Amino acid sequence: MERVKAILFDVFGTVVDWRGSIIAESAQWNRPAVDWARFADRWREGYAPSMDKVRRGELPWTKLDDLHRHTLSELLEEFEIEGLTEGERDHWNRVWHRLTPWPDSVPGLTRLAAKFTIAPLSNGNVSLLTDMAKHAGLPWDLILSAELAHHYKPDPEAYLTAVELLSLRPHEVMMAAAHASDLEAARACGLATAFIHRPFEYGFARTVPISEEFDLVTTSIEDLAAKLNAKLNG
Amino acid sequence: MERVKAILFDVFGTVVDWRGSIIAESAQWNRPAVDWARFADRWREGYAPSMDKVRRGELPWTKLDDLHRHTLSELLEEFEIEGLTEGERDHWNRVWHRLTPWPDSVPGLTRLAAKFTIAPLSNGNVSLLTDMAKHAGLPWDLILSAELAHHYKPDPEAYLTAVELLSLRPHEVMMAAAHASDLEAARACGLATAFIHRPFEYGFARTVPISEEFDLVTTSIEDLAAKLNAKLNG
Repeated sequence: MERVKAILFDVFGTVVDWRGSIIAESAQWNRPAVDWARFADRWREGYAPSMDKVRRGELPWTKLDDLHRHTLSELLEEFEIEGLTEGERDHWNRVWHRLTPWPDSVPGLTRLAAKFTIAPLSNGNVSLLTDMAKHAGLPWDLILSAELAHHYKPDPEAYLTAVELLSLRPHEVMMAAAHASDLEAARACGLATAFIHRPFEYGFARTVPISEEFDLVTTSIEDLAAKLNAKLNG
Repeated sequence: MERVKAILFDVFGTVVDWRGSIIAESAQWNRPAVDWARFADRWREGYAPSMDKVRRGELPWTKLDDLHRHTLSELLEEFEIEGLTEGERDHWNRVWHRLTPWPDSVPGLTRLAAKFTIAPLSNGNVSLLTDMAKHAGLPWDLILSAELAHHYKPDPEAYLTAVELLSLRPHEVMMAAAHASDLEAARACGLATAFIHRPFEYGFARTVPISEEFDLVTTSIEDLAAKLNAKLNG
């Protein structure tokens, strides 16, 4: 772990609270009959199946923005939300560019950026992650994305393309994520791993258990910065 | 020009003073017999021919760091500089990661970042540009590079890959550079263009004339910010 020079972060759920952000912004659409928590969960449920179509080659490479937009169209029918213009639908779809960080994310990343190169490695497309960083003040050194490999995580190409662009070797790069499956795929490519426990990513009714089997197990990005400093100094 | 949402910057010569930086750092090697200005010019002269080999397909895709390293080995022979370890040669090669910005670059980019997405679009590889930004405090929103297209500028793929990653159309993107050939290639791809006059890029003995035929003609990045603000507000 002493050789880690760069840290890559999963973003949705790890750095930003997608569920709380979507519930809060959707409520502004003023449709009191809609259960926005269920709407947010259904939107997120469309994520893996739509990416899997790309990963299996049933769809050509498609940006996450366009996958989200397709799911949104289906959800507007399912929830019987009518009367929106195309421009309003496009704006709503870009809520994923405006997600709010967990409270520890900006201070933790700022601390880590003093010693490491830090970047997202998300399935979100480059422009989504760029807009989000400007909106939320995330101090990334560069934007990395599955889009640069044209392979969604957990395909190994997503991790190995990021390592190659950093001009580093896999063991010099750490993947940090709230999802064990992401870290298992990164570890299989030779990266170091840090689990960040986000118990309430899916709300209070469905808490996420902690995963213990990674190089570092932490409770926040500030905790990750503290634990890495302790390792390097002691 | 009112539709421009992102500005891409050439880096070597446009944002940073490669020649002055290399002369200053090389002097630390304490070889009084070497003409460091000539050494810097010879290093830069190796740039276009080595990239052209990649552009013509005589070499597979090769990062600029590796092209620079090859040229450096030849220069050490030419200038009869001996006794350096491999580690010292590698460190010297990374002087391109430690170049100093022109005085207007950081304040100008900071001002532009408030209204536009800003990124380098350089033939420097991603890790070179990332290290340089951390070293020099360049406030890029993201790092774009010819490396992401595996095509060096002025190949059109370099510009069009950047536009695609920004999820914009070519006319929504402006290329800013101190070199007319770079801007002509960007314009042929449909981008807006801004010339930044850097008369002393090659030293005081070989001043560069101004080029007038672009959408904006400016004398610094601060001047670019002022002229764009004037266009947008009036």
